[in-house]
Amino acid sequence: MKRIFILKSSEGRTAPDFSLKSLSAWRMDLLARCIIASFTIPLGPRREVVLHIVLEGPPNPPITISIKGEELEKMPINEIKAAEILYNALLGKPDRGVYIEKKSFEKVILENSNNEIFYLHELGESIEKMKIIKTPVFVLGDHKGIDEEGERILEKIGAKKISFGKIPYLASHCIIIVNNELDNRWENGS
Amino acid sequence: MKRIFILKSSEGRTAPDFSLKSLSAWRMDLLARCIIASFTIPLGPRREVVLHIVLEGPPNPPITISIKGEELEKMPINEIKAAEILYNALLGKPDRGVYIEKKSFEKVILENSNNEIFYLHELGESIEKMKIIKTPVFVLGDHKGIDEEGERILEKIGAKKISFGKIPYLASHCIIIVNNELDNRWENGS
Repeated sequence: MKRIFILKSSEGRTAPDFSLKSLSAWRMDLLARCIIASFTIPLGPRREVVLHIVLEGPPNPPITISIKGEELEKMPINEIKAAEILYNALLGKPDRGVYIEKKSFEKVILENSNNEIFYLHELGESIEKMKIIKTPVFVLGDHKGIDEEGERILEKIGAKKISFGKIPYLASHCIIIVNNELDNRWENGS
Repeated sequence: MKRIFILKSSEGRTAPDFSLKSLSAWRMDLLARCIIASFTIPLGPRREVVLHIVLEGPPNPPITISIKGEELEKMPINEIKAAEILYNALLGKPDRGVYIEKKSFEKVILENSNNEIFYLHELGESIEKMKIIKTPVFVLGDHKGIDEEGERILEKIGAKKISFGKIPYLASHCIIIVNNELDNRWENGS
């Protein structure tokens, strides 16, 4: 089952000015783990996933990097390899399957508004009860969550809040849980 | 709900001779992500988790590093920080909550045989149907899986195979899915 993730990164750098050896500086490590969570399985890369990362940090926000699993040639197996995907795109040399555009969170959401949009939030409805009829879109915040302006955009578009339980998780862990949930539905033919 | 993970690492180094800047060399990155998967949540570290990593790589196998969430003072937020936990232990300077012993996979399994032992395997029974009555123990292999000798030990002890579906996942991703499943059971009082 096809699925789209949109990750809003409030601090993600918008230039290749970060060090691949020190990814935690602007929490680029968090973004790297979200890329691994999206695409990396032993038989991967996952073809059914598209990940849009909206970078809102200095020096040139916003920039959206989109990664399409069905076009990927290699699969990142660790944080540095995953961060290289972002680094290369910001350098203007994106890998195959990776696209970079001067595009805001609002624009990415609007472009996906023909699909059903789910906003991952501790107070949402349980994912298990959620009905999915077409390609779902899952929106996640970073360690700071989604800001007020972002929530306003999601509310306007009618995004549904969904949850995995009362314990908040890391963004990358949410992606893994969603991927597993959808894998199981697909197996069961729903 | 308390839970124990046992990770059998066929290549994990048994001396502090790996570089924290190049973790993929012996797949120490895989172990690092399993530590993050076990303990790291925004409100963490998770107190309810114990992780035993059995290192079987050169030069001094086997060595088991045990990490107890309830004693941890800090939570690893990226691969390098997580790998430092292993590195410090192998240096003979384990962090608080971390223990290192000359101990084999078989010994770790036998020490935990009072609990119910589950072996994560694509062909196992669905985790959702699994009944858990006391502290469960989950056994995982690395990228090479569990070898024949390991499987024999698990069979002898009566470990039950459980699965998340037909798609094989990375070890760290399995830990995240188990943690979520148990979190939800705990919330529901089971």
